[in-house]
Amino acid sequence: MSLTTVPHTHSDLLNAPYATLATVGPTGRPQMSTVVFLASDDGTVQLSVNETRQKLKNMLANPKVALQIQDAGEPARYLELRGNASVEPDDDYVFADALGAKYGGLDLRRMDRPGERRTKVTVTLTRARAVDMREPGTVGAALDS
Amino acid sequence: MSLTTVPHTHSDLLNAPYATLATVGPTGRPQMSTVVFLASDDGTVQLSVNETRQKLKNMLANPKVALQIQDAGEPARYLELRGNASVEPDDDYVFADALGAKYGGLDLRRMDRPGERRTKVTVTLTRARAVDMREPGTVGAALDS
Repeated sequence: MSLTTVPHTHSDLLNAPYATLATVGPTGRPQMSTVVFLASDDGTVQLSVNETRQKLKNMLANPKVALQIQDAGEPARYLELRGNASVEPDDDYVFADALGAKYGGLDLRRMDRPGERRTKVTVTLTRARAVDMREPGTVGAALDS
Repeated sequence: MSLTTVPHTHSDLLNAPYATLATVGPTGRPQMSTVVFLASDDGTVQLSVNETRQKLKNMLANPKVALQIQDAGEPARYLELRGNASVEPDDDYVFADALGAKYGGLDLRRMDRPGERRTKVTVTLTRARAVDMREPGTVGAALDS
């Protein structure tokens, strides 16, 4: 699926600063956290995750994830993206720095303790759901790939 | 766990208009949606869900859920709440109307098609995690019950 299949009404959200990532933990319970992200035209969303985080362990055990991106000014308007996560090392912070550039040069090294390593997580999207709760007809509207 | 164990720095978020609910679907993938909610002093968060929604089916099969409440003005500040959902009928919209009162008289009937029924979902909280990404020391800070 290409990100270009996200409807025009919601495509601006792909440039938002934050997304909420949901992974599934070892007991089958969802875990949620706010993340910085890059959305690529190739239909992937890329994250930078410290290797010690529970969400990374969750994704290595179960790559099925979801992401939600809300309109900060109108949280009733949002995108839900579903996909499958793959993890690769980012020991040299090459991707972390590329992601940091979106945030005016955010240095993700300052989030890490000495000896901790960083990974690049690529979520290949399988489904996008565009919702605006202010317009009941769009609740549940979905674009399946 | 009482909601009073949510730290003072984040307790205002319990009165926010929207939360994001994560449930786990039949294939083990998280599903996310924005919901209106009531947080009670007894350590529960209550939702009103149309019986036809996939998230309701998910919760009936797996009651383990998570909720995230973001500060609309500063999405880097948020609460993640985890808990277990129980579902009961709300055929007469008694709870739906009590919830609607938080939103100035929102009538949830207008979200439902003829013949569809509404349920009250009570999430009994087991864990609260208060995060402010602007303060790295608080990332991952958690209050376990």
